[in-house]
Amino acid sequence: MPPACAQTAVTSVSREAERAARPGPAANFTGTVSVRPIFPVSPPSTVSAGEVTFQPGARSNWHRHPMGQHLIVTAGLGWTQAEGGAVVEMRPGDVIWCPPGVKHWHGATPDQGVTHIAIQETVAGSNVEWLEPVTAAQYRR
Amino acid sequence: MPPACAQTAVTSVSREAERAARPGPAANFTGTVSVRPIFPVSPPSTVSAGEVTFQPGARSNWHRHPMGQHLIVTAGLGWTQAEGGAVVEMRPGDVIWCPPGVKHWHGATPDQGVTHIAIQETVAGSNVEWLEPVTAAQYRR
Repeated sequence: MPPACAQTAVTSVSREAERAARPGPAANFTGTVSVRPIFPVSPPSTVSAGEVTFQPGARSNWHRHPMGQHLIVTAGLGWTQAEGGAVVEMRPGDVIWCPPGVKHWHGATPDQGVTHIAIQETVAGSNVEWLEPVTAAQYRR
Repeated sequence: MPPACAQTAVTSVSREAERAARPGPAANFTGTVSVRPIFPVSPPSTVSAGEVTFQPGARSNWHRHPMGQHLIVTAGLGWTQAEGGAVVEMRPGDVIWCPPGVKHWHGATPDQGVTHIAIQETVAGSNVEWLEPVTAAQYRR
């Protein structure tokens, strides 16, 4: 997620060209992932958002969000799974809610990429706790 | 904004067909406006989101958000203005931040509608304080 910025006293606008996509780090993702910032935390607000695109076969590591996370799927076909639960398909127009502290992952399907907007709140300076990769066996089961 | 829903213990998915657009109420908007819920507040999270479409000439009343509001413009051409400030054009890809307590409005241009995602946090049960309409003179200045 992008860093917090100083609070502005008036309405501010960021144009898409100012928010370049960057590769999702290999420490947190398997495969090819890009993350485009949408908006950083603007205190005292705690919410931030980013657009994440997973190429076919790519997925996040297992992770948790301290205040949960909402995903708005905008393109492609994806999968998400909470630990111990079924894999759920994500299609454009779907909105996914993962509650606080629930260990989960999300990503593309093997043959089709997916793009979603991710919205989460920051608690004590963090909006995510990264865990281990989703193995090929876990992903393909 | 949609009402808060009971917290779920696992990941939940809402499909677009379950989130029908409704007219923006005449008490809060001028002209033809539709509001499609994206996600309600899921406690302890305080964030909610909705997609708002303004037909040409339509706009919100003046209003304030207790923890601010982020707009992600997805289609068309819009205007937004904070009290005492300049009117700012909103185009697809633009992201607008309006800080807590700042009196503002947003809407379409006279000749072109606009659609944006609106994301805001709830404080003490409210995410917006509605004020008076934006007059034709204020809108056309």
